[in-house]
Amino acid sequence: MVDFNIIRCARAVLLVTNLEASRDFYENALGFVVTEADENHLYLRGYEEHNHHSLVLKKAEQPGVEAISYKVYSDEDLNKLYDYFQQKNMNPKWIENQHAVERAFRVQDISGLPVEFFARMDTVERLLQRYDLYKGARIQRIDHFNCMVPDVQKAYDFYVKELGFACSEYTETENNELWAAWLHRKPNVHDLAFMNGNGPRLHHIGFWLSDQLSLIHACDVLAAMGYAKNIERGPGRHGLSNAFFLYLRDPDGHRIELYNGDYLTSDPDFLPIRWDINDPRRQTFWGHEAPDCWFNEASQVFDIHSGELVELKEPSVQKLKPDFVI
Amino acid sequence: MVDFNIIRCARAVLLVTNLEASRDFYENALGFVVTEADENHLYLRGYEEHNHHSLVLKKAEQPGVEAISYKVYSDEDLNKLYDYFQQKNMNPKWIENQHAVERAFRVQDISGLPVEFFARMDTVERLLQRYDLYKGARIQRIDHFNCMVPDVQKAYDFYVKELGFACSEYTETENNELWAAWLHRKPNVHDLAFMNGNGPRLHHIGFWLSDQLSLIHACDVLAAMGYAKNIERGPGRHGLSNAFFLYLRDPDGHRIELYNGDYLTSDPDFLPIRWDINDPRRQTFWGHEAPDCWFNEASQVFDIHSGELVELKEPSVQKLKPDFVI
Amino acid sequence: MVDFNIIRCARAVLLVTNLEASRDFYENALGFVVTEADENHLYLRGYEEHNHHSLVLKKAEQPGVEAISYKVYSDEDLNKLYDYFQQKNMNPKWIENQHAVERAFRVQDISGLPVEFFARMDTVERLLQRYDLYKGARIQRIDHFNCMVPDVQKAYDFYVKELGFACSEYTETENNELWAAWLHRKPNVHDLAFMNGNGPRLHHIGFWLSDQLSLIHACDVLAAMGYAKNIERGPGRHGLSNAFFLYLRDPDGHRIELYNGDYLTSDPDFLPIRWDINDPRRQTFWGHEAPDCWFNEASQVFDIHSGELVELKEPSVQKLKPDFVI
Amino acid sequence: MVDFNIIRCARAVLLVTNLEASRDFYENALGFVVTEADENHLYLRGYEEHNHHSLVLKKAEQPGVEAISYKVYSDEDLNKLYDYFQQKNMNPKWIENQHAVERAFRVQDISGLPVEFFARMDTVERLLQRYDLYKGARIQRIDHFNCMVPDVQKAYDFYVKELGFACSEYTETENNELWAAWLHRKPNVHDLAFMNGNGPRLHHIGFWLSDQLSLIHACDVLAAMGYAKNIERGPGRHGLSNAFFLYLRDPDGHRIELYNGDYLTSDPDFLPIRWDINDPRRQTFWGHEAPDCWFNEASQVFDIHSGELVELKEPSVQKLKPDFVI
Repeated sequence: MVDFNIIRCARAVLLVTNLEASRDFYENALGFVVTEADENHLYLRGYEEHNHHSLVLKKAEQPGVEAISYKVYSDEDLNKLYDYFQQKNMNPKWIENQHAVERAFRVQDISGLPVEFFARMDTVERLLQRYDLYKGARIQRIDHFNCMVPDVQKAYDFYVKELGFACSEYTETENNELWAAWLHRKPNVHDLAFMNGNGPRLHHIGFWLSDQLSLIHACDVLAAMGYAKNIERGPGRHGLSNAFFLYLRDPDGHRIELYNGDYLTSDPDFLPIRWDINDPRRQTFWGHEAPDCWFNEASQVFDIHSGELVELKEPSVQKLKPDFVI
Repeated sequence: MVDFNIIRCARAVLLVTNLEASRDFYENALGFVVTEADENHLYLRGYEEHNHHSLVLKKAEQPGVEAISYKVYSDEDLNKLYDYFQQKNMNPKWIENQHAVERAFRVQDISGLPVEFFARMDTVERLLQRYDLYKGARIQRIDHFNCMVPDVQKAYDFYVKELGFACSEYTETENNELWAAWLHRKPNVHDLAFMNGNGPRLHHIGFWLSDQLSLIHACDVLAAMGYAKNIERGPGRHGLSNAFFLYLRDPDGHRIELYNGDYLTSDPDFLPIRWDINDPRRQTFWGHEAPDCWFNEASQVFDIHSGELVELKEPSVQKLKPDFVI
Repeated sequence: MVDFNIIRCARAVLLVTNLEASRDFYENALGFVVTEADENHLYLRGYEEHNHHSLVLKKAEQPGVEAISYKVYSDEDLNKLYDYFQQKNMNPKWIENQHAVERAFRVQDISGLPVEFFARMDTVERLLQRYDLYKGARIQRIDHFNCMVPDVQKAYDFYVKELGFACSEYTETENNELWAAWLHRKPNVHDLAFMNGNGPRLHHIGFWLSDQLSLIHACDVLAAMGYAKNIERGPGRHGLSNAFFLYLRDPDGHRIELYNGDYLTSDPDFLPIRWDINDPRRQTFWGHEAPDCWFNEASQVFDIHSGELVELKEPSVQKLKPDFVI
Repeated sequence: MVDFNIIRCARAVLLVTNLEASRDFYENALGFVVTEADENHLYLRGYEEHNHHSLVLKKAEQPGVEAISYKVYSDEDLNKLYDYFQQKNMNPKWIENQHAVERAFRVQDISGLPVEFFARMDTVERLLQRYDLYKGARIQRIDHFNCMVPDVQKAYDFYVKELGFACSEYTETENNELWAAWLHRKPNVHDLAFMNGNGPRLHHIGFWLSDQLSLIHACDVLAAMGYAKNIERGPGRHGLSNAFFLYLRDPDGHRIELYNGDYLTSDPDFLPIRWDINDPRRQTFWGHEAPDCWFNEASQVFDIHSGELVELKEPSVQKLKPDFVI
């Protein structure tokens, strides 16, 4: 297997319908740093990040996902990846003149997700020790993408066998069908997870927090600002990944996860952890059931060539959610 | 008004059907200190408490509440209170020879709750700084009782106008009927709360924790020990009281609240805070709805004279719960 | 003993030389709420406080303490107290036309400290649940005064026997001389503490925080803003009081303590805890030694009649500090 | 440069004089998991670790360091590394029959430190979600070694240029001499740091905690158990690395750091952060000075061939510590 040297999940490009509403939510309530903003874009990052942004919000007629993006080690790796996708006839496309990002290409991945790769993004001042600026959830950095796809096994095989991701944890149905998988390049639980369902859709973007009380404080701030209805699930402890979590819906319905406290997965002898989909501690270690909307709703993605919404496919595994959902 | 000098809520006497199961839950999972135990009793306290216990579990055929108990300043106050109840023809009854408690009397209060008063309990070593013994939720001390009663207004009047409790916060229906009230003697939000419903029943006993992360850790420990199903509601922030909370059900279904972070209510110019029952931030500031069982289920109480269960009455206010319960 | 019904320590009036520098420190770094400000005054409160302020900073030529102040239950109590001081020939003095405070009088107490009493202060909006406004140390409320006096035993006797304060903890020398005492009216560890030393001086004002991580965050914010040199001692755990603490020096050298996590002292059978001055866990439970300046430096106080600095007296107990100070 | 595929720092082998005393400190106070123990060895790990141990304590006549050890990806990598050291005439030595570790070799590194490499260690049950077993500092995993060496520049060059470590942060004197460097293989701040001083010596081993309050609780537990004197420095925030830290001395004087909260260093465009040795926020962001003993004392290491203590050399850079040490 060629090593494409993908470093980590790096940014998402989301379409939103009201930049002002989004800015209040992401900047004032969640405490993202606004690196830059113009009439049609908002470039956001966490306090730890030295790259220009990890989230771009673009003003659009309808919400959706333009791209989820990975950083690779070097331009050479980027070219190798581009060639690989071309050889596979997956029709990758160089994207020119993006703000703050150098050469990048996009491709619809095996599940139809609009994926981007790049090697270099502008660097900016890290604000990790500017504690005087911290507010809201004190977002530290982007951590992962979670995507709903119609065929988790196929997506898993592609990312693990072709692109060199490693699996940390996974979920199977009672019939041992792969229902969800957590894959990583950087050595924590994931850069990318797949979940069985109508897809391809982006289920959520996870952002890393430095501690649990920042997450509790985020709930308090959100409620104080009138965003209580945007809290969808949690706070709680995931059984799977062990992380302390909170799921939010932004003003356009995009789902954001605040996330802290998983573990190091660098060892080659670390064996992926298997969970049964009906294990009550899998999703929330404390037994809390996720609401139905958490399983049904996700952000639709766009075709990188046509600019149209990608059509959804029914999932290959019948099981849509655990038996015990609320 | 006579000042009876009631200091604070002090202990509960609960009947449980399996002392061993209770001990695992309270001692190993929640981290109560076992002051003493015999075949039929378990005497429990928090790390901060210098009195012998704040919770007695008694082995019995069926679960229930024998008494909820208040500490008064002196024997003189105790006698004054006894005389008061006698003059009111409420038939108070001295209880002799209780373990670790000196003179005490019990009386069925205006709502039919079995209430006890005493002035002196044995003192024991305070373990506040024995951090090496801390485990589970690191219970610090008893904080309050919450009772479901058929006539909140009547209970409120009795405790405020006759016994000298002060009100910190209260809830009204859209018709300005008193639906719930939080009353205190020690100057935090409550020693005693009343909630409209079939009663008299003990809804829960609240215990104070030193911090929020002890409560999060309690969830983790409960889940690790197989008690996830005993977590009924939370963790969350109460709008009312501002406390960080978790509701648990013990092996007999008695409800325990872990509680941290309300505020000082000592000032005479502090005005009780009014909440509308349908304010979504009232119960859980973050908007989370309480489950139906939280409104319906509570511990039945016993008659101090007959030893029989006290009959339940329908609540005077029609509204049984907020509009938005799950 | 007459019960003067003193509720709690309520506010301090400090003289500072540069209001702008003070405002940056108290508002931006520590996160006090500025209720009002004019050219010569800054009125500050914590997020929990419903009274107009708990700290007044007044512009002056030299730093010092104009008054430390207690709230009493009613005007009647205020009058009773005034009469008491008159009968004692202590020369109390009504102070007219103070901003936000109704009738108040001041008196030089038995140690020479300028003490004020009042029953009513203007009320303002409580910001306890305006978490979106929280910053810095997220100050909740005033907690206590700590004063250095030349004769702790005399001060103790006056406040306990005459004014009805209760003692929670105290420190003695190897010769059983009273070296320090922690006294309270509200039922936590203290409203007022006395420490042996050149006095009368105000050693520090303690403010209550809601949790330990707010205190850690305060350190980070102070350092990020260039106030690292204002951190004098801590963070640490006090053996005495069990509180988690941090000592700061404001731009004029006034000492502020951030404080969280003591315990309930409402019970009449709670026995004051004795500490030996040389017990290494007394000051800092973890064994950390306080710096010399912590023992030597404190804020001088003014005479309420002459407006002059009150002259300092040598302490009656020879021992100025524990043996093991850095 | 050959990529030897070193994964991370993996274990230390320390010599201690009293296994019982060590066990109380590491197991009961710090909350290490004891995987195995016999008369002469104690094998310890953190709750997250799936390998047999990350710390071995061996009973010996005098305290010291037998080896600090790195895990490599595969046996092939191990052989490559062995060959490399042989070609360099550094005399590596295979160590046979170690408990729980497969093939391993040791070598005295460029500074004289006894370093070990291995590819496989026995796996055991991960206890990450056995929260019911958590105690003390709730140690999660080994994080890094910090070594005092006489020539930091030489050590830096060897590990960066020969072994493929990356530098995250470094310290220079006013003359731009390299005074200390933080190097990593796993992508957080370090697996290995070097500090200028008499060496080679092991300054400390860092262990990762999941959160800040576990570290505060560790202080409380240590003090409660009589280990206050073993707390050498902190808690505090490092400027360098941004981690929240605590330094402890074990019963033999070996230094342990509890550590939480650095950042991700996976990006190739992350530039090492330079600190001036006299920047007061470098060591402790909050300005606290480290005690003199922290600079002077460290654990001596043994020669892997002779079994004798390795002789110490004077440091090449004159500056032994910052100007402002206590």
